[in-house]
Amino acid sequence: MSRVLVTGATGFIGRGTLAPLVAAGHEVHAVSTRPAPASSYDGVAWHQADLLTDPEAVIVRARPDVLVHLAWYTEHGRFWTAPENVRWVEASLALLRAFATAGGRRAVLAGTCAEYDWTTEAPTLVERVSPLAPATLYGHAKAGLHEVAAGYAEQAGFELAWGRVFFGYGPGEADGRLVPSVARALLAGEIAKTTAGTQVRDFMHVDDIAGAFCALATSAVTGPVNVASGVPVTIREVVDAVAAAVGSGPDSVDAGAIPQRSGEPERIVADARRLREEIGFTPRYDLATGARQTVDALRGRSRS
Amino acid sequence: MSRVLVTGATGFIGRGTLAPLVAAGHEVHAVSTRPAPASSYDGVAWHQADLLTDPEAVIVRARPDVLVHLAWYTEHGRFWTAPENVRWVEASLALLRAFATAGGRRAVLAGTCAEYDWTTEAPTLVERVSPLAPATLYGHAKAGLHEVAAGYAEQAGFELAWGRVFFGYGPGEADGRLVPSVARALLAGEIAKTTAGTQVRDFMHVDDIAGAFCALATSAVTGPVNVASGVPVTIREVVDAVAAAVGSGPDSVDAGAIPQRSGEPERIVADARRLREEIGFTPRYDLATGARQTVDALRGRSRS
Repeated sequence: MSRVLVTGATGFIGRGTLAPLVAAGHEVHAVSTRPAPASSYDGVAWHQADLLTDPEAVIVRARPDVLVHLAWYTEHGRFWTAPENVRWVEASLALLRAFATAGGRRAVLAGTCAEYDWTTEAPTLVERVSPLAPATLYGHAKAGLHEVAAGYAEQAGFELAWGRVFFGYGPGEADGRLVPSVARALLAGEIAKTTAGTQVRDFMHVDDIAGAFCALATSAVTGPVNVASGVPVTIREVVDAVAAAVGSGPDSVDAGAIPQRSGEPERIVADARRLREEIGFTPRYDLATGARQTVDALRGRSRS
Repeated sequence: MSRVLVTGATGFIGRGTLAPLVAAGHEVHAVSTRPAPASSYDGVAWHQADLLTDPEAVIVRARPDVLVHLAWYTEHGRFWTAPENVRWVEASLALLRAFATAGGRRAVLAGTCAEYDWTTEAPTLVERVSPLAPATLYGHAKAGLHEVAAGYAEQAGFELAWGRVFFGYGPGEADGRLVPSVARALLAGEIAKTTAGTQVRDFMHVDDIAGAFCALATSAVTGPVNVASGVPVTIREVVDAVAAAVGSGPDSVDAGAIPQRSGEPERIVADARRLREEIGFTPRYDLATGARQTVDALRGRSRS
């Protein structure tokens, strides 16, 4: 049993980590700028705080053995370029200093596939092998934070694991993103307009991403770990899985109605062997099941 | 003419940048935790402030076009491993955010040769070609800061140059380091005890390092630039140059009296073509001249 603090506990990934960590027998602390959600989390100690203004206070109160740091600026459409990325590097480092000073043993932080060089022809992105070359401020900020945090962890004597998140989907996803926007259009009986959808990506259901971070929190593995399925799918296959989950007909999707953004990489797929073999984590959802579960959740929300 | 703010203005490198920047016609602002030195710097606006506690205040007061950020934790013997490196990453990013917000145009920051991988057999370290793999927290902190700062500069629209400092020597160097410790022993008539001194390094006189940063401040070059001579010398050659400057006899140095630290790299030498050709900077000091000037300064200090 460890005392685990989850930051970003109301976020897309964070909210799925709390129940599994409690179920595994840990003393779970959660921090968010928001109050504890109406849905109760039995056994979760809630800390409402802003890590940007006082990253140390919650460490002093919770005194975690294990830190799962998921909080970041994640506003859809803006997070790639926003200066808030820089502030989150500062706050994350201050949080880590407070954690180490308070005797913390293991920190798990969220990185991103955007740290990798997306312009190479590499078929699969492998931790510590594939070159890093972020093309966005978000990617630069995460890669730079990892560089500093890894050096600090080694010097200060705590374990650090760095989960590089690829493409998540699932209930609670921001509305403008691919899966909810296609699902909402189809559920409303409209034609879903998409790109041709030839781009190949690595998608993982958000509950599996959360589960992977729980597994990272309790493993002893350090360094970068791709949090991804390792399964290449085209955007078109994702759209088709959503359409099948809705039960829409073959003419319900207008693929090609939206032009592909210039410069968008053709292929971003993870080597997921570290997550599966070293961490021992296996995703629960394949794409068809995940799309059904996501569409069901959207149906439930639109009914209520 | 630019409004230039130098941080770390009383430091080993910083203090040598002020007069040249004033002489070049710039409006020069300096910030340090210490008061303005007794020796007057005509035309330098002095700001006594602690960048660790309030990095924004000095930007608001000085409103620089150009930032030359040299301040860091530099305590000899401790700076490689000290947690202060992490605090300086945070403070440097907050300083850059304030600088960009206030309309700053160009930032020049001090990096280090310790960002490079020292375990490769590469004969010469080349910017953007030689792999980075810091072995110390100091190197990790500088490399990570560069990663974030470069992404931020590109996004926010200011120029960023990153001067990777190699091995400096000269007046004002911390007492425990190679050149002053050998020079002091020899000036006192003692035998100077050193390692065998076969390690090859890239030494540059501190006035040349300061001059290189002044040149970087006024150039338009962005990205990493090795601040180094490009001339490989052995530690033994440095010791011999100091002995010659003191006028000591052949038996005054006991080379090999101190064992070489295990794991110390055999060769750390820069490719200095970017500094010479793209920045147009040529060092004034060769090793013999620099050693004489350094020994003369030490003689003057011990006399006064």
